[in-house]
Amino acid sequence: MANAIRIMGIDPGLRHSGWGIVDTLGNSLRFVASGTVKSDASLDLASRLNQLFVGLEEVLHHYQPYEAAVENTFVNKDATATLKLGQARGIAMVVPARAGLRVAEYAPNAVKKAVIGVGHGDKKQIHMMVKVLMPKASFDSDHAADALAIAICHAHHRSSPAWRMAAE
Amino acid sequence: MANAIRIMGIDPGLRHSGWGIVDTLGNSLRFVASGTVKSDASLDLASRLNQLFVGLEEVLHHYQPYEAAVENTFVNKDATATLKLGQARGIAMVVPARAGLRVAEYAPNAVKKAVIGVGHGDKKQIHMMVKVLMPKASFDSDHAADALAIAICHAHHRSSPAWRMAAE
Repeated sequence: MANAIRIMGIDPGLRHSGWGIVDTLGNSLRFVASGTVKSDASLDLASRLNQLFVGLEEVLHHYQPYEAAVENTFVNKDATATLKLGQARGIAMVVPARAGLRVAEYAPNAVKKAVIGVGHGDKKQIHMMVKVLMPKASFDSDHAADALAIAICHAHHRSSPAWRMAAE
Repeated sequence: MANAIRIMGIDPGLRHSGWGIVDTLGNSLRFVASGTVKSDASLDLASRLNQLFVGLEEVLHHYQPYEAAVENTFVNKDATATLKLGQARGIAMVVPARAGLRVAEYAPNAVKKAVIGVGHGDKKQIHMMVKVLMPKASFDSDHAADALAIAICHAHHRSSPAWRMAAE
């Protein structure tokens, strides 16, 4: 799309990080691509984080998004799981920041609200609505579908006064 | 020191990340440098993580360490604090990994045991022992002193069979 804004959504995870690229122009959305970056669980943590870094950097260089968005997740299971997610999330945020992109953060219920219209709902509903909003969308994992949902959420919010003000 | 192994210890934190560079040869330790990389709390999270990334990368390029070590911290305060620490820790681990360094992880009590001889003790004892072990050591923050303690811990453990085996 001419003059469209290209957005990269990222759903971070140490084992699998999903990514989704969406073009937005006015109220229209266009699916560009999505996928999953994996880390090898047999490697040490630093090497796994580097695999996520390299994988996300490749996507970014290939698709040249203009803005990025990451879900602001809170894991309540246990401190170990939260620390792991935090580490992967640090990578998901720093890769676009290093490339000069602004990185928006959205709470899970904001993503749900943007995609399915209400602040609650299960993963199946989100994935179905991603397909309704962008019929050509395809995804190879739940993480990739969630990343597309995060990109859609940012497409809806990026013209809000708060984001515009922060961008100026 | 000729043939010495240069180690970079990192104590990650979103606001302040400490770093310490130590040369080790056999049982001897030599202080090289230490410092603190800060992030600007008025910026968005992605920009702050990028500040930590750039700062740690500069230290790494300047001092050219051969191996790195990071404390394996668990924060039990709350999920938000743990997620924040995880994000900073992801940066602390991926910066040396990107440069091809292996990154060791040590539990806080392993660091204490290596520096003060027992698995418990307060920060003051650790900082005092860092000065006893390396009289020329100086540090501009608690984080920098902790980073030196982590580097000392790795100097003690790096010749252990488990680490050597993993390195081969």
